[in-house]
Amino acid sequence: MGCTEEDAITATEVLLSADLRGIDSHGIARLSGYVRLWEVQRVNTKPAIKIIHESPSTAVVDGDGGLGLVVAPWAMGVAIDKAKKAGTGWVSVQNSNHFGIAGYHAMLALENDMIGIAMTNASPLVSPTFSTERLLGTNPVCVAIPAGQEPAFVADMATTTAANGKLEILQRKGGVAPLGWIQDKKGKPSTDPHELKAGGALLPLGGDREHGSHKGYALGAIVDIFSALLSGANYGPWVPPFPAYVPMPDEQPGKGIGHFFGAMRIDAFRPGDDFKWHMDKWIKRFRSAKTVAGQERVIIPGDPERETEADRKKNGIPLLKPVIEDLKFLAEKFEVEW
Amino acid sequence: MGCTEEDAITATEVLLSADLRGIDSHGIARLSGYVRLWEVQRVNTKPAIKIIHESPSTAVVDGDGGLGLVVAPWAMGVAIDKAKKAGTGWVSVQNSNHFGIAGYHAMLALENDMIGIAMTNASPLVSPTFSTERLLGTNPVCVAIPAGQEPAFVADMATTTAANGKLEILQRKGGVAPLGWIQDKKGKPSTDPHELKAGGALLPLGGDREHGSHKGYALGAIVDIFSALLSGANYGPWVPPFPAYVPMPDEQPGKGIGHFFGAMRIDAFRPGDDFKWHMDKWIKRFRSAKTVAGQERVIIPGDPERETEADRKKNGIPLLKPVIEDLKFLAEKFEVEW
Repeated sequence: MGCTEEDAITATEVLLSADLRGIDSHGIARLSGYVRLWEVQRVNTKPAIKIIHESPSTAVVDGDGGLGLVVAPWAMGVAIDKAKKAGTGWVSVQNSNHFGIAGYHAMLALENDMIGIAMTNASPLVSPTFSTERLLGTNPVCVAIPAGQEPAFVADMATTTAANGKLEILQRKGGVAPLGWIQDKKGKPSTDPHELKAGGALLPLGGDREHGSHKGYALGAIVDIFSALLSGANYGPWVPPFPAYVPMPDEQPGKGIGHFFGAMRIDAFRPGDDFKWHMDKWIKRFRSAKTVAGQERVIIPGDPERETEADRKKNGIPLLKPVIEDLKFLAEKFEVEW
Repeated sequence: MGCTEEDAITATEVLLSADLRGIDSHGIARLSGYVRLWEVQRVNTKPAIKIIHESPSTAVVDGDGGLGLVVAPWAMGVAIDKAKKAGTGWVSVQNSNHFGIAGYHAMLALENDMIGIAMTNASPLVSPTFSTERLLGTNPVCVAIPAGQEPAFVADMATTTAANGKLEILQRKGGVAPLGWIQDKKGKPSTDPHELKAGGALLPLGGDREHGSHKGYALGAIVDIFSALLSGANYGPWVPPFPAYVPMPDEQPGKGIGHFFGAMRIDAFRPGDDFKWHMDKWIKRFRSAKTVAGQERVIIPGDPERETEADRKKNGIPLLKPVIEDLKFLAEKFEVEW
């Protein structure tokens, strides 16, 4: 596509980390989607990513329309550099594109003994509580926290009841979605995983008002505001869609899509060894908690992804046939050996 | 109780703001609870609150066992001061007590053209997904974001499906709780609002695994870690209970309960007027979104509390009879004119 080799390697690493961690919806399966965005000239493969405003602990980064897969690690690097000097670093990004999995970017902080935070806004698929309009993306947040002997705590989650990837799995399987995941175009609860194509929407975490969907909606809104209103990106219903065939919104109050990153140096609060000792104690206590009958253990955020990664590093990454077909098609298109 | 007049005024303001905003469970109704904590010598009324560690954008504050109502605004003041110089300020607090509503503290940032964040851990009442043990508090988070012509965006929420205060209302009314709020001591879904007395637990936002309770659990965990593991406070099942009659946990890995505060200066990212113009646009777009039949409008986080505050400032704060009795009892005890 014209990326530098360095950028191509970075983008590959981000996609591969999604596949390894079992977030198949955000891995190599998306490669053809990124290519299509480039074909409609919505991705700049030679971006001049730069800081356009800063303070000792903050920066705003202009992604110059680059792949989010490349812009995000760059911006997270700025957050980490700020944290080295100021204790914490907080970077809001405008003019970017889909950044892959939040977890990859947040986890860059771990090797620096920092807590990492990554979030992004996204194509509007989610209705706020009481609305029939799709005004928010699934707006994921990841918080990665280092531990000592125990593996890091890594919570990487959409602010909806279920991520769009889970719906896609049901669509392929022909399954039925639990109530609380989606609503139809009139805002009525639905179990049809194809509802989004008919004007329906994903629901904020909580599902309905009685079960706290106003909280999921608020979380998605906070991600939107931190990612786009602090940076000058598009927000709410005006976020550019990921599928290249979906036309751009008529109005664009900002530039591209927005992300937000944070890095907090542990020893800006207390000695790293003390913190890690207590994190280990926290993790052990929760992991060994008494379980509900039929459940083996209490899961620490990040456990399932880490276990999948260990398995896939050993046994390989299973790919669905349509994904393989897509990759073959791309190999031909770009004259890459298959 | 021996507080300085200044501290007494601060504590009163925090409690009063809860009553004005309609969060009755955290207002003057709790005064007798704080007094009982003081009686069992778990509150220091003359705390020497101090910074014990800091970097340009961070600090750890030792609350010296003071009322959280007093410690929290002090620590939020440190976050705001840090943000003035470094762009952002992040303060983790150890050795504190129950801090009232998170909203009061976060909203202190608004008048400084900053985004304010406040969170706290709390007595363990919540079971992680798949567990029967109560290992987390309702661990609330508030994020307050300034706007221009529109009122500020203020999301103030427990990380559970329903706050404990909502359960207390059902207990008084003799009502039934929706499924997804609580579980019994074996971890089975329950609708009995008295379930907590029988070894049951509140559930993380989401309610069950299928509806994303692992996300609510992760959010509560993050609040616990930021509030207590960064500061050196107690965490998880070892957080001191609010009711003075509940014995302290056998083990105490830290000091008191923990809070975490953040302040982000808007103009550390972009000019305040630009940001506020876009916040107004965001708020207007969401507030005017098409609604589900039977709903008048889409609510912006903070709307209900602000409307209650306007009403109560005009018409007064309704108090339940048991609260009035409690206050009369306290007035006699402290020889305050009724």
